[in-house]
Amino acid sequence: MKINGKQYRSVWFDGSANAIGIFDQTLLPHRFETLALTNLDQVCHAIVSMQVRGAPLIGAVAAYGYAIALQRDASDAALQSIYSRLFDTRPTAVNLRWALDRVNAAVIALPPAQRAAQALATAHVLADEDVAVCSAIGDHGLDIIRSLVMRKPRGQPLNILTHCNAGWLATVDWGTALAPIYKAHDAGIAVHVWVDETRPRVQGGLTAFELAQHGVPHTVIVDNAGGHLMQHGLVDMCIVGTDRTTANGDVCNKIGTYLKALAAHDNGVPFYVALPVSTIDWTLPRGVGAIPIEERDPVEISHISGVDDNGDITRVRLYGTESRCANHAFDVTPARLVTSLITEAGVFDASVEGLAALKTQLEQAA
Amino acid sequence: MKINGKQYRSVWFDGSANAIGIFDQTLLPHRFETLALTNLDQVCHAIVSMQVRGAPLIGAVAAYGYAIALQRDASDAALQSIYSRLFDTRPTAVNLRWALDRVNAAVIALPPAQRAAQALATAHVLADEDVAVCSAIGDHGLDIIRSLVMRKPRGQPLNILTHCNAGWLATVDWGTALAPIYKAHDAGIAVHVWVDETRPRVQGGLTAFELAQHGVPHTVIVDNAGGHLMQHGLVDMCIVGTDRTTANGDVCNKIGTYLKALAAHDNGVPFYVALPVSTIDWTLPRGVGAIPIEERDPVEISHISGVDDNGDITRVRLYGTESRCANHAFDVTPARLVTSLITEAGVFDASVEGLAALKTQLEQAA
Repeated sequence: MKINGKQYRSVWFDGSANAIGIFDQTLLPHRFETLALTNLDQVCHAIVSMQVRGAPLIGAVAAYGYAIALQRDASDAALQSIYSRLFDTRPTAVNLRWALDRVNAAVIALPPAQRAAQALATAHVLADEDVAVCSAIGDHGLDIIRSLVMRKPRGQPLNILTHCNAGWLATVDWGTALAPIYKAHDAGIAVHVWVDETRPRVQGGLTAFELAQHGVPHTVIVDNAGGHLMQHGLVDMCIVGTDRTTANGDVCNKIGTYLKALAAHDNGVPFYVALPVSTIDWTLPRGVGAIPIEERDPVEISHISGVDDNGDITRVRLYGTESRCANHAFDVTPARLVTSLITEAGVFDASVEGLAALKTQLEQAA
Repeated sequence: MKINGKQYRSVWFDGSANAIGIFDQTLLPHRFETLALTNLDQVCHAIVSMQVRGAPLIGAVAAYGYAIALQRDASDAALQSIYSRLFDTRPTAVNLRWALDRVNAAVIALPPAQRAAQALATAHVLADEDVAVCSAIGDHGLDIIRSLVMRKPRGQPLNILTHCNAGWLATVDWGTALAPIYKAHDAGIAVHVWVDETRPRVQGGLTAFELAQHGVPHTVIVDNAGGHLMQHGLVDMCIVGTDRTTANGDVCNKIGTYLKALAAHDNGVPFYVALPVSTIDWTLPRGVGAIPIEERDPVEISHISGVDDNGDITRVRLYGTESRCANHAFDVTPARLVTSLITEAGVFDASVEGLAALKTQLEQAA
């Protein structure tokens, strides 16, 4: 990814400062600031406050956080308490657990004195793997984009709708849902992206920022608009990310994903979900009604931040103080509304059979 | 309606000042200010800038505006130019035309000297009629609420989701979609309202303000949340207003209505649309693809207003200036997703047959 023309990842380790580098995503798209996290408190705060967000990025940041915390205390007791504190930051992020388990498994058999270094090495591996995984998702998604472009009249851009931010800001690089879009744009295919605002936290601002930095044509719309656009043939495909996919292909993603999937289904628009295999929860047979949905602070509904006329980031209250707000952060889109799952291992049906085929392929590759 | 305990209508005529009284709805829910409109320019500005909004209220304000403009010049030429200027303020509002036609028909055969007084009398009649119409919609909707309450376990409130504002702020009094809710609340029925934010213009803030003033329990949610709530049995009915209904029962309403109707249909939640008969466009056989959808200023997407920490109403920019925004203001919900239409003349199927039955009833009553 490039920001102002300079190459970045969404998380990096600065060995000389012994610090984890991130962007403060709560300030984007208005201000570009990097943060150096040097202890577990800061890492947990970064995840909870959404200075970093996106399932894959949270996993990578947590892995680095695990490593940096082990530098202070690498006892068996510390291992467990660090794991718990990081795990508790985001209950729905299944590959947060996966990343922590990977680090844990790599260090638990070692003498305490060797654990921190090994954890850091593992975090580096996880970050590099995430880049490779997202790049592979991009390649598989690019094949789908190419096939949809074939059906369009020549010279018309392919219109792609996305919800929330599943771009490189949500991963270490490339993104999940946006990776195929970047690959298509880089391959000279004309694409135009409808960017859902994604209230309450307006992650559409992050997606628009990413696309603008990469030069991809895009238009921001409110979350209410996608159905109308699909009804009028203005969307050729939808592609979103997911925090968690269950063994039947149900996908738990940002609140509002389900509504877009319904509209896509009603209008014959293909609805793709892009995900690293690590975000699949094989233990859950289904998602609807089974995945606990995080309820976040109602202040994210009642208030919103932006840039005022003086260029300052300002928070304003939208509702009267006598009105209660509720903030359900995710919803579950039933597999029947999902055209396919795009993973680093290929494209699979969102169904029990599709997931089983993916699992078999993974087991044979292992 | 009551505001701070005092009785109001959403539009009134102050004879001593020869002025049309309205609330500046662009300041609500943050500040309560009345405006006195004394000429056609101010009336057109009030409609275009959404100081008044909602199909029935726009019709009534336009009728008063017609009257006040005729006081200056009641020639045949003026009649036509006043009509045109008012008509052009909101292209989708079918009962704006209906109200203007009513005033026009009442005055056109009179000598110019008598036209202004007759127009004002007609505007008063239209306003009183609107109050009666909305009250009747409320009564018919109350019957539906009573029947749904019967199916709920005793002591649990009926959960009603609404989109945009179709309350008394959108009419002269009572509202359309909210009228049944007020009647139910006043009848001692426990109701709880899920209030959709309704980006871009956050008319959910108006609905929450109304409900708070009337003491109706309610919770504000983002537009993305309704599908999740319906999936989890937390919505017993949806009820919305409409700007325009076609002869097959398609309804054109605030952008995002279609998405909620899809979710209601997918979860077996009844989806009602409340409307005065005057908003039916009998000339259009269907709505989807046939009703021109107003595209409003993209600044309504890129910016949002609220109250800052100092209590000042402040506008903030949500997106980077390099990102384009698009602002489709309405969408069309196909009749197949609408359970029933609630009108002042009773409850009718949203279908060619249902609308025909309504038309027959209206013709027999006339």
